[in-house]
Amino acid sequence: MSPTKRTLAEISWDELQWLSPLEKAELFNLGERPFHVLMAQQFSRPMLEELGELATRIRQIAKSKAGMDFLRGLLTHRTAMLYFSQPSTRTFLSFHSACQILGMKTVEVRDTATSSELKGETQEDSIRTFSSFAEVIIMRSAIGGLAEKMAWVLSNTERPVPIVSAGSGKDQHPTQALLDIYTLQRSFETRGGIDGKTIVFVGDLARGRTVRSLAFLLTRYQGVKQYFIAPPQLQIGEDILALLRQAHCAFEVGHDFKKVIPAADAIYMTRIQDEWDEQAGQSGKIDISRFSFTAAHLAKLPSKAVIMHPLPRRQEIAVEVDEDTRAVYWRQVRNGMWVRVALLVAIFDGADDIRRYDGA
Amino acid sequence: MSPTKRTLAEISWDELQWLSPLEKAELFNLGERPFHVLMAQQFSRPMLEELGELATRIRQIAKSKAGMDFLRGLLTHRTAMLYFSQPSTRTFLSFHSACQILGMKTVEVRDTATSSELKGETQEDSIRTFSSFAEVIIMRSAIGGLAEKMAWVLSNTERPVPIVSAGSGKDQHPTQALLDIYTLQRSFETRGGIDGKTIVFVGDLARGRTVRSLAFLLTRYQGVKQYFIAPPQLQIGEDILALLRQAHCAFEVGHDFKKVIPAADAIYMTRIQDEWDEQAGQSGKIDISRFSFTAAHLAKLPSKAVIMHPLPRRQEIAVEVDEDTRAVYWRQVRNGMWVRVALLVAIFDGADDIRRYDGA
Amino acid sequence: MSPTKRTLAEISWDELQWLSPLEKAELFNLGERPFHVLMAQQFSRPMLEELGELATRIRQIAKSKAGMDFLRGLLTHRTAMLYFSQPSTRTFLSFHSACQILGMKTVEVRDTATSSELKGETQEDSIRTFSSFAEVIIMRSAIGGLAEKMAWVLSNTERPVPIVSAGSGKDQHPTQALLDIYTLQRSFETRGGIDGKTIVFVGDLARGRTVRSLAFLLTRYQGVKQYFIAPPQLQIGEDILALLRQAHCAFEVGHDFKKVIPAADAIYMTRIQDEWDEQAGQSGKIDISRFSFTAAHLAKLPSKAVIMHPLPRRQEIAVEVDEDTRAVYWRQVRNGMWVRVALLVAIFDGADDIRRYDGA
Repeated sequence: MSPTKRTLAEISWDELQWLSPLEKAELFNLGERPFHVLMAQQFSRPMLEELGELATRIRQIAKSKAGMDFLRGLLTHRTAMLYFSQPSTRTFLSFHSACQILGMKTVEVRDTATSSELKGETQEDSIRTFSSFAEVIIMRSAIGGLAEKMAWVLSNTERPVPIVSAGSGKDQHPTQALLDIYTLQRSFETRGGIDGKTIVFVGDLARGRTVRSLAFLLTRYQGVKQYFIAPPQLQIGEDILALLRQAHCAFEVGHDFKKVIPAADAIYMTRIQDEWDEQAGQSGKIDISRFSFTAAHLAKLPSKAVIMHPLPRRQEIAVEVDEDTRAVYWRQVRNGMWVRVALLVAIFDGADDIRRYDGA
Repeated sequence: MSPTKRTLAEISWDELQWLSPLEKAELFNLGERPFHVLMAQQFSRPMLEELGELATRIRQIAKSKAGMDFLRGLLTHRTAMLYFSQPSTRTFLSFHSACQILGMKTVEVRDTATSSELKGETQEDSIRTFSSFAEVIIMRSAIGGLAEKMAWVLSNTERPVPIVSAGSGKDQHPTQALLDIYTLQRSFETRGGIDGKTIVFVGDLARGRTVRSLAFLLTRYQGVKQYFIAPPQLQIGEDILALLRQAHCAFEVGHDFKKVIPAADAIYMTRIQDEWDEQAGQSGKIDISRFSFTAAHLAKLPSKAVIMHPLPRRQEIAVEVDEDTRAVYWRQVRNGMWVRVALLVAIFDGADDIRRYDGA
Repeated sequence: MSPTKRTLAEISWDELQWLSPLEKAELFNLGERPFHVLMAQQFSRPMLEELGELATRIRQIAKSKAGMDFLRGLLTHRTAMLYFSQPSTRTFLSFHSACQILGMKTVEVRDTATSSELKGETQEDSIRTFSSFAEVIIMRSAIGGLAEKMAWVLSNTERPVPIVSAGSGKDQHPTQALLDIYTLQRSFETRGGIDGKTIVFVGDLARGRTVRSLAFLLTRYQGVKQYFIAPPQLQIGEDILALLRQAHCAFEVGHDFKKVIPAADAIYMTRIQDEWDEQAGQSGKIDISRFSFTAAHLAKLPSKAVIMHPLPRRQEIAVEVDEDTRAVYWRQVRNGMWVRVALLVAIFDGADDIRRYDGA
């Protein structure tokens, strides 16, 4: 690290807001190692590669009971706080399992509204209290930017414990983006990796933070082509397209799903996120019938392509598709757990311990 | 197993509904070992005997710290999900403790309504997600048949993890029946076991799934005599009596509690389950005063008989009775925990490890 | 113990109510060791000293991973039930962390209203059931005296597990008082301890159980001078002042905060507890502006004095004060955890194991 580089403790909250993602990344990471995990953009390509390799190595070690025992001994002296003020069973389970695989102690905090907040405590004081009982805080909140704020607050205390965002407002869900990248890495393992592949995003691209983050992370790879297939009201935001243009990444925006299937290396289906509707029933008026993956589409899909979905799904992928070997969305769930294990290992500087393990 | 035998994965959900309990048992068990635990009827007499012996052996091992440490090392690489959409503190605590005794990691899922279900996910997809994070799912639901359905769903996936019912609708609560059998086994340990004993059921026999399951399991034993003592509106169902007749088991239906006390080897008291009333206050109109066990009854009870109750109780057993050595209902609570430990050991094929342990 | 001394099992509930705190202490403690932890008054000065030394020794041991591993092996065979029917994130986290540091298994019980209580079970039966699954019950309840009642109930059963109060009604929160004493012990470690010091209590002294308990425990020390600074409506109760007079402890009651700051060794700030207002908005009418600690006060505070607060705070300590080294309220949070670890060690008679440890 250059001697002139500043840390999160040396910058004001207002100043932090004006930094670019890249400048923020330098404050959230410790060099090439994640410390706070707050946004997909903080992960460079080398960091993504290393995280994927670490996750794969950990998965292999975990296949034996001896390996599981080794992993469970790594972080026994660490406690993770799972602070989920916005509920999410899936993400909670994934992080919780990741912590347990590493032998971490865990403690949950859910409805803080029932206790200290009612007594007039500020969020800053609450998080500072929480930090007394944990070495990492994994937090999910409906309030955009809150995780970042809390990371900044703690950086200015005696216990600057790392904050890992498990979803913060409408914009950031960085570990979901990491698991998607890891799923693509694994899917294209024997096909030269993600470089040069064609990824098709389908559905509600306007409101899915998953798609937005992943589309951005794909700019880290060479020669990737991205298709955004959606009804006009749910099409991807102009801000993302601007980023892609700036990074000289090829993309096409359209609505003819059938036509692009034969060109896809990966199809990324998404659910209509009507919980974000500004008017009740607004999404119901949109014709989404042509943005579902049905059994009939399987014949048009290349034999080595994969079908992904961040789950939960509704009708946008037919249940019969589940049995096709190209459907990898259930595997994504497990990938999410392993990449979160790898992330925690990286945060606590344990990657070398993993690499040195030769019991497997 | 015969080569023609089918597995749960090879049968349709509709077909499954038409099978007899015995036919189902063959699909839920792995030979004489439980896999899914869904109904009391799937336990044959040899299975009940083995489970009881296993529970007793485990109880003895657990008396020393060395033994506790041995037990806690058995299933460290396994995670149990406690999926309780219908609350039950008692059953939850019992299963949770059982898991912890074996060193299993645990994770709780309660209000799923707050997350994925709201987003339109099917129960099948939810359980499949849950199965990604656990090696056994212990589930309690107010919906009859749901546990069975979920077991069937998972049998058709890459991760067919076992489902253990902790209460499913009005009909099945198999582990409660197992703990009752285990309590009877222990109570009659030096008196030749359960064969030939007289069991008196008292109270709300119409709606207690506990009584229904236990009455059925007692047909596995020779020469047992069963009394059903209840007000006419709460008397045991005709379907159970038909099963007893079919199995050539002796029974009597009546309402004179005092008269049968001297003949009892075990008296099984139950609570009026007015939470199932079809009209508010319906149970309140029934005279239940003669279906309580009072201190005055103790003198009439044989000296080696036992008084049981599935708990929670209201006034149907007087608090003064608690101090009598024949009152075993508090011991039933601990028996429930040990029999659940034994069940988990059996599911994960650890019975031989328990038998081989010679540290105690 | 003298042969004539009675145990909690030998006394009726009604009789217990008539005993003095000192007489109760003899029933709750096992000689000089705590068993049930129900009231601050049960701690003698030697017990307070020993607990503080134990907490400090444990803190030192925990600085290394080897030490943490040693601690985590101490109580692996014990389960703590955290029975919080009144929510408190802070106290819950502190106890939970304390249990995990010692390797205890933990299980939470929160809304019992959803299960057994609805079925008509008495609190006595519920606690008896809970005791089947734990070796200590840490309970918090809005009902005054409930923890004491439950301790008495369990003393009369086959499993008389200890009850630790984590707050019981308006009056008792004994472990908060213990952490305050521990914070004072540490703060005056190199200044001859608590004897002879001047402690200033400020704010809502009428309704803070913390202040009431601590004021009482300070009578265990020689030559302590206590100031009670509050608006007249929130001044300390006459009952506490009577106790101080009886113990020949010096004190002054007043409202001129600025004047006493230069004399203080410790300033104990408190929040207006308007959740106990008898009429809505009642506290809002009281002028509390002169009962806050601002940055301007720092200059008047002696250089070795400390500022304490039980947290959560509102505006009664300005955030800028946090950075002053004399502000120890965040350290109080960690002290609370360590003193609770020490308390659990004492309850399970592990103090000698701690003293013998020489790995650190």
